Amino acid sequence: MVYLTRKEHFNAAHMVRNDSWSEEKNREVFGKCANKNWHGHNYNLFVTVKGKPNPDTGFIMNVKELSRIIQTEVLDKLDHKNLNLDVPFMAGVMPSTENLAIAIWKQLAPHIKECQLHCIKLYETENIYAEYYGE
Amino acid sequence: MVYLTRKEHFNAAHMVRNDSWSEEKNREVFGKCANKNWHGHNYNLFVTVKGKPNPDTGFIMNVKELSRIIQTEVLDKLDHKNLNLDVPFMAGVMPSTENLAIAIWKQLAPHIKECQLHCIKLYETENIYAEYYGE
Amino acid sequence: MVYLTRKEHFNAAHMVRNDSWSEEKNREVFGKCANKNWHGHNYNLFVTVKGKPNPDTGFIMNVKELSRIIQTEVLDKLDHKNLNLDVPFMAGVMPSTENLAIAIWKQLAPHIKECQLHCIKLYETENIYAEYYGE
Amino acid sequence: MVYLTRKEHFNAAHMVRNDSWSEEKNREVFGKCANKNWHGHNYNLFVTVKGKPNPDTGFIMNVKELSRIIQTEVLDKLDHKNLNLDVPFMAGVMPSTENLAIAIWKQLAPHIKECQLHCIKLYETENIYAEYYGE
Amino acid sequence: MVYLTRKEHFNAAHMVRNDSWSEEKNREVFGKCANKNWHGHNYNLFVTVKGKPNPDTGFIMNVKELSRIIQTEVLDKLDHKNLNLDVPFMAGVMPSTENLAIAIWKQLAPHIKECQLHCIKLYETENIYAEYYGE
Amino acid sequence: MVYLTRKEHFNAAHMVRNDSWSEEKNREVFGKCANKNWHGHNYNLFVTVKGKPNPDTGFIMNVKELSRIIQTEVLDKLDHKNLNLDVPFMAGVMPSTENLAIAIWKQLAPHIKECQLHCIKLYETENIYAEYYGE
Repeated sequence: MVYLTRKEHFNAAHMVRNDSWSEEKNREVFGKCANKNWHGHNYNLFVTVKGKPNPDTGFIMNVKELSRIIQTEVLDKLDHKNLNLDVPFMAGVMPSTENLAIAIWKQLAPHIKECQLHCIKLYETENIYAEYYGE
Repeated sequence: MVYLTRKEHFNAAHMVRNDSWSEEKNREVFGKCANKNWHGHNYNLFVTVKGKPNPDTGFIMNVKELSRIIQTEVLDKLDHKNLNLDVPFMAGVMPSTENLAIAIWKQLAPHIKECQLHCIKLYETENIYAEYYGE
Repeated sequence: MVYLTRKEHFNAAHMVRNDSWSEEKNREVFGKCANKNWHGHNYNLFVTVKGKPNPDTGFIMNVKELSRIIQTEVLDKLDHKNLNLDVPFMAGVMPSTENLAIAIWKQLAPHIKECQLHCIKLYETENIYAEYYGE
Repeated sequence: MVYLTRKEHFNAAHMVRNDSWSEEKNREVFGKCANKNWHGHNYNLFVTVKGKPNPDTGFIMNVKELSRIIQTEVLDKLDHKNLNLDVPFMAGVMPSTENLAIAIWKQLAPHIKECQLHCIKLYETENIYAEYYGE
Repeated sequence: MVYLTRKEHFNAAHMVRNDSWSEEKNREVFGKCANKNWHGHNYNLFVTVKGKPNPDTGFIMNVKELSRIIQTEVLDKLDHKNLNLDVPFMAGVMPSTENLAIAIWKQLAPHIKECQLHCIKLYETENIYAEYYGE
Repeated sequence: MVYLTRKEHFNAAHMVRNDSWSEEKNREVFGKCANKNWHGHNYNLFVTVKGKPNPDTGFIMNVKELSRIIQTEVLDKLDHKNLNLDVPFMAGVMPSTENLAIAIWKQLAPHIKECQLHCIKLYETENIYAEYYGE
């Protein structure tokens, strides 16, 4: 079993706010992240798949094909978007790094067929990232 | 003459759009950056000052004091903000990387007194940055 | 289960030397790291916790709270310190990257309550790091 | 159990091409990587070993010794070489990132004696890497 | 005057060898870089232009257009190529980092029209780069 | 004229303290950097030289020779040392980043003969660096 990882990136706006809470509680819990006029991030996304190298290619999966799937299923839907307003698969979900990593997994998993999706690692900033392994 | 640089960072939302243009022309020129629901970035900011080291300290300027000025004059006004809506010193200015670098220079220059402000270098993404030297 | 990581950093001096050994054996095993006048590093620390996202926040743990705990229990005790002389929880321990990672785990584990501490990853230089998972 | 990682790097040329295929199929599957005049990469290699710290040193393995083994068994054989032509242990193997990671594991494993080899992580570019854990 | 920089990258093979010299002298001067079977690099390219921001866009030059020019004039001709064999504009030129930076300047300068080309910065490895300012 | 830069690194201990001042004033000005038991850093050093490429080599200076000079004149004297105690060329000088950059220039300048030393850029941490151009 070998693991192969492809790094991609996208830029998006969001806010982290619970509308069932008071403004005061939102500020206490989410701090500046609750700003109603939005803020944003350069997200770095690492998608890891696992499998056995195909003897004809040496690849567990063609990384060009992996890139194409990430582009179509994830980047086209998230890049230069507002995570709270523009993204059907995030509707009704708090756009935390954790939840966004889980949602990206769900977008990609059905399309990885030659091998298996192993991990979604998502950097919100250089100092914060989440990882999800599918369960 | 020695040059000293301090790196800081902030996260913000913005859109790049010219309201005197049609939607079509905005999309043609600004592409995804014109999304009306905003997008955002992790900005990395490098502030460079120049001067002669003080013999008592070895410093051209105390980097703690430089950090404090950047915090008060720049980061408190930009971090987790919307560059089009929340920032008085960007009012009426296209929030391009170039214009934001110039605006940050104007915020900082009056407060650097022990030595001279030399350069503002601002990364919008890992792949795009602007530099401004005050003229 | 989702994993969330926070990066922090601190600067410290240390030496790696076994006082029960001859100077010659210290130099043979530890090389330049045995310099009796100390040397030092910029340490980068990655703390990973794991848990389920809270539906109210989308967080497995509030990263501000995680940062506060790391600051109080680790950084205040290690930053700009001498690892051999100034740090009670390193007393009598060889300050190798491996041992320092284990010691940081022990400092943090009792304070992570909402979710579980998963990994301490500690960079001594850009080219050397240790990881510890609690057992 | 603690994990210790050493980063090294090497530069090499290669092509990815299956000689039993037509030129057309090579171009379709491997794209620009099939260029018959070669292309190349700066490879970054992360070697992770695992074990218990020795009480006399604080080390699971002396990182100088780990570096020496990587130099002798891997870097001397790969650095500034052509992976398809110059490397006996890659003879007859497609020089994909996956296969190169597996081959590096086989080179190193017999020489790690004080502790256990845990992982080979190999970056072909900043955006693509493979990991192999020995099975 | 503001400076705007775009980062791009390409992968290429080369050798550094002077055919009018003996094998011995080539090895003495160029070391492993003279390997007749080639080696290669991931090159990182930073292209800087300078000018005044256009009031309608805030841009000194549209970075999408800058990227398009770099793609057409430089990357399409260098990426996944052999610098000694495949690149007409490097014919008869030693493919050192210095000479490659000068050659990239000459490729780009005629195509930068809205503003001025200022600097080509080219990384051959993380530890070596050349800069050229056009004279 | 082309500029060529070589990156190197070293690890060292230091304190920043003015012995003619009270402990209180040292703490006020230098903060944690005045800790009498030392702290330390991983320093990253960028040495830039400038000149015209030699037609026989394509090099303004052989980077192997530049590395050898930096090793002999700088790294052997600073790496794994105490900047206040162990370094003759820093005797009586406050070991600030600024002063250390100037001192490294003075160490290297007499030994760069084929071309000219242009800049010393020295990172004390990822967030602070000094540059010196010789005057």
